Amino acid sequence: MDYTAPLKDMLFNIEHLAGLDSIVQLDGFEDAGIETIDAVLAQCAKFNQEVIAPLNAQGDRDPAVLVDGCVKTTPGFREAFKQFADAGWLSVQHPVEFGGQGLPSVVGTACSEMANAANLSFSLSALLTDSAIAALMSVGDEKMKQTYLHKLVSGQWTGTMTLTEPQAGSDLSLIRTRAEPQGEGRYKLFGTKIFITYGDHDLAENIIHLMLARIPGAPAGVKGISMFLVPKILVREDGSLGERNDVHAVSLEHKLGIKASPTAVMQYGDNGGATGFLIGEENRGLEYMFMMMNSARFTVGVQGVAIAERAYQQALAYARERIQSRAIDGSSLSSVAIIHHPDVRRMLMDMRSRIEGCRAMVMVAATANDLGQRHIDATIKQAQHEYYEFLLPLIKGYCTEMSLYVTSLGIQVHGGMGFIEETGAAQYYRDARILPIYEGTTAIQANDLVGRKTVRDGGAFARSIAGQIEETEAQLGQLDIQAARSVLHALGVARKAFLKVVDYMVSKGSVAPNSAYAGSVAYLMMAGELVAGWQLARGLISAHRCMERGIDTNFMQSKISTAQYFAEHILTLAPAHCDRIIGGAESVMAILPEDF
Amino acid sequence: MDYTAPLKDMLFNIEHLAGLDSIVQLDGFEDAGIETIDAVLAQCAKFNQEVIAPLNAQGDRDPAVLVDGCVKTTPGFREAFKQFADAGWLSVQHPVEFGGQGLPSVVGTACSEMANAANLSFSLSALLTDSAIAALMSVGDEKMKQTYLHKLVSGQWTGTMTLTEPQAGSDLSLIRTRAEPQGEGRYKLFGTKIFITYGDHDLAENIIHLMLARIPGAPAGVKGISMFLVPKILVREDGSLGERNDVHAVSLEHKLGIKASPTAVMQYGDNGGATGFLIGEENRGLEYMFMMMNSARFTVGVQGVAIAERAYQQALAYARERIQSRAIDGSSLSSVAIIHHPDVRRMLMDMRSRIEGCRAMVMVAATANDLGQRHIDATIKQAQHEYYEFLLPLIKGYCTEMSLYVTSLGIQVHGGMGFIEETGAAQYYRDARILPIYEGTTAIQANDLVGRKTVRDGGAFARSIAGQIEETEAQLGQLDIQAARSVLHALGVARKAFLKVVDYMVSKGSVAPNSAYAGSVAYLMMAGELVAGWQLARGLISAHRCMERGIDTNFMQSKISTAQYFAEHILTLAPAHCDRIIGGAESVMAILPEDF
Repeated sequence: MDYTAPLKDMLFNIEHLAGLDSIVQLDGFEDAGIETIDAVLAQCAKFNQEVIAPLNAQGDRDPAVLVDGCVKTTPGFREAFKQFADAGWLSVQHPVEFGGQGLPSVVGTACSEMANAANLSFSLSALLTDSAIAALMSVGDEKMKQTYLHKLVSGQWTGTMTLTEPQAGSDLSLIRTRAEPQGEGRYKLFGTKIFITYGDHDLAENIIHLMLARIPGAPAGVKGISMFLVPKILVREDGSLGERNDVHAVSLEHKLGIKASPTAVMQYGDNGGATGFLIGEENRGLEYMFMMMNSARFTVGVQGVAIAERAYQQALAYARERIQSRAIDGSSLSSVAIIHHPDVRRMLMDMRSRIEGCRAMVMVAATANDLGQRHIDATIKQAQHEYYEFLLPLIKGYCTEMSLYVTSLGIQVHGGMGFIEETGAAQYYRDARILPIYEGTTAIQANDLVGRKTVRDGGAFARSIAGQIEETEAQLGQLDIQAARSVLHALGVARKAFLKVVDYMVSKGSVAPNSAYAGSVAYLMMAGELVAGWQLARGLISAHRCMERGIDTNFMQSKISTAQYFAEHILTLAPAHCDRIIGGAESVMAILPEDF
Repeated sequence: MDYTAPLKDMLFNIEHLAGLDSIVQLDGFEDAGIETIDAVLAQCAKFNQEVIAPLNAQGDRDPAVLVDGCVKTTPGFREAFKQFADAGWLSVQHPVEFGGQGLPSVVGTACSEMANAANLSFSLSALLTDSAIAALMSVGDEKMKQTYLHKLVSGQWTGTMTLTEPQAGSDLSLIRTRAEPQGEGRYKLFGTKIFITYGDHDLAENIIHLMLARIPGAPAGVKGISMFLVPKILVREDGSLGERNDVHAVSLEHKLGIKASPTAVMQYGDNGGATGFLIGEENRGLEYMFMMMNSARFTVGVQGVAIAERAYQQALAYARERIQSRAIDGSSLSSVAIIHHPDVRRMLMDMRSRIEGCRAMVMVAATANDLGQRHIDATIKQAQHEYYEFLLPLIKGYCTEMSLYVTSLGIQVHGGMGFIEETGAAQYYRDARILPIYEGTTAIQANDLVGRKTVRDGGAFARSIAGQIEETEAQLGQLDIQAARSVLHALGVARKAFLKVVDYMVSKGSVAPNSAYAGSVAYLMMAGELVAGWQLARGLISAHRCMERGIDTNFMQSKISTAQYFAEHILTLAPAHCDRIIGGAESVMAILPEDF
């Protein structure tokens, strides 16, 4: 099944929602005008459509394997990765200083969506490398940066996040891997790590593991975790590759999906100790891990949008082509393409509106991230940083849960054919299933949203989002079209329900945490729907403006109808979320563990 | 992963909700008292737990294969099927006249849930055979019944539903397979059928295909379809097996799930024509197909409950055992079993309450089916028949959609381990995905609910259900406990929303069908939630009564809390369903097919 990058919607978001005007005012982004971005995205689309997408089904059939202690990736991956790296698609948003293209995050995000839609398993290598880059840029010392960053940005080497152990998944306090000091920032590492994505592979010359471990004598729990840089092959002073480090993949997992992405059990130090280098300061590993993790979480949210888009495109193509049953409104006496049946349209609109809402949210967040790092006005900078931080759990949590629903509908549109592996719809469903789990489950995201992003500041930032939504409502109120009235109504109802829940979370968060956290995921889903619906509403306003000027009217009308669908069918859930969160906490905990 | 049949909940349903009192008054069921039923179910549980369940994972790893034109099932299946048949588990609810045990449907339903929870792929052979039996009992002539029914009931032979062709899935009007008359009710059949479950296998001596085809000169469309009985091996006058018929499996599908169940492409008549026998009258095949299909649809709904129960049990066991993170309420300073975390409890309660609600609905429907066929009072008989018919699309549609959600939560509870195939949670997720598709997709069920079950009688029967729910509300109003008050409130709100939607469907069904059918699946989901929530509410009343008498108070308290959870977290969706159905039809159809 072919993939066609949704360039039009991406550019619409960049131009109208994700603040292109403010991006080009940032230091370093002066040249990132819409024409430049358009050209970059078009090239990126072509590359992913032609080179990466065709390898997706093959990766599923012919996954990575472990042979004599080395991981061999799917045939074709190695060559494609080299082309991918050489063409610069790994370096879009990385700093020019380290060989990157220095483009705004929103451009990198669009490129990342395309790559992940083309091939989720393949693109995971880039996701992990980007995360390692993010951590090294923030806390690596100058020598580390010089030694590793150029090669990671260019794709000559890749990175990993090496965190999980059998007993320590969401709970990193339980980490046991140990790091014995050898002096001068060198350590010998010993232990087993599991679920290490691209822990070993043959795509690049070297693999740089960013690894959490304990130094003997460190405090118990998360305050005694440090972060180490552990190369697969040690790097000499002159930057050339030296001897093989004592780091080995010992097995690969058999997974439900993303089969082409090797998930390794890694063994460190079985032959005397793996050489590693302390990153930053001792015992601050958890803090550094979050720098890496936040980058990863954002991109996993993008993966949700990406796989949902791919599933949608395939379902749409099938719905146009499959002839079955007469039209229910009597408009045709012979069987018609199933896209004419109302429930097939409902499924397609559901997929489409969720994807477009999430894409808008993700791209708006990408700009917030840039503004939050680079804006010259400290107040704006701080506000945008907080905005990005608030959106992060929604992006990771909501966009990935969305992808489960959309890829499931993708199968359903196909009927029986959807259940046949050769059709391809099932692969998206299987691949997507990891997204709400890895890099922090939906529950972990919801904890973050409740605790750090809502309760900590007494709900202030959440309420400021509601304030911004109210401004959008005021703008909608000036449009004399049915879709705007419908969206205005639904958005207002959802915003008020959201505010009630924010008050509830603030009031319960500290004094009755079980009552707050029993509703945490419902709160996350509600907030995700609200923000996605809000972005679609902003899009409606822009699309209406474009239509008035006669710009691309069919596309703009579709944006308006899509926003209306989302408001009428999805935003309408907000009162139910509110009811269950506020009225239902007791019944969540009513049955004691022993009585289940 | 072990399976333990939920006997206590099954017996609670039979005793308190599914009208055991009225069942034992039916002709032929005089001996089906609770002790007898208890004994039968206990034996059935033991057999499925010990013999069938252990083959489930193996079937996934080692699916059926086609070797030299014959399907070989997973090692162990053949022996298990013989034991299954010999022990009488294929014949529980079939008439004594044909060698069955003649037990009430509700007992057969409980047995079917256990078998399908133990092994969905394995138990599909029984589902198809039961469906063939249902059709033959209704419309087969005496000779056919004598020749085939005993052997199908005993499991010496199995049956298939042979309907689908590449161009004819949901739309049977497009069937092309042809049947050429040879005189005396004999025909030669020619054509290709696809998606034929257990179309070939080695579990039994013979396979009886109930097949739809066209007789040359028959009217176009569904009015020209006839049903034929086509044995794999022809049966001689004396009942012994004769020559091999011209019926062959030519390939098996590679599927997302239920891999051990062979899904065959079947070729009929490549060597001169497959011998078949007309069932009933010419051109009435679609009508007969529905007899078979209705039986199958009911049991597919049971499969939804079954696979969800299996997923729930595994998730619960993991949640009890996996230690991760401290309790959020500060009740423990060290890491605890994850069942103590509110969101894990939310997931478990969600799974549990949906399963119990659906199980109650299914078992109540089973009794309605018996009463609708056997009650001596014609008015009651008719009402119960209509009740069963109304519930059928909810059972097939809602219980199977429920199973997608529950098996997905089953993975989520496991975190990263859920994505690893060896854990087993992923198999339930994959297996369940066919349930809302085969034997009529959710959209087809929703069409049935809107068209035949609601619009046709002007909403009368749907409103009578709401009337019965109001009676339950009156009973709830007499209970002075918080759970009853909470359920009463949610049930009333949901019932009123349901009534609004019924009025809407009736008003739009004929004059603006696109507006009705755009909301058909939302209506089905809403009706399913209402009926499941209502049954749980009835269960709450019974459980409260039992508690007052000191009967099994922990179990009864859990039933009450489960009903409360469902009301507070799921029934609360009803107003949102209502809003989207009534206010959202236009946006479903707003984007024209060519503008997608």
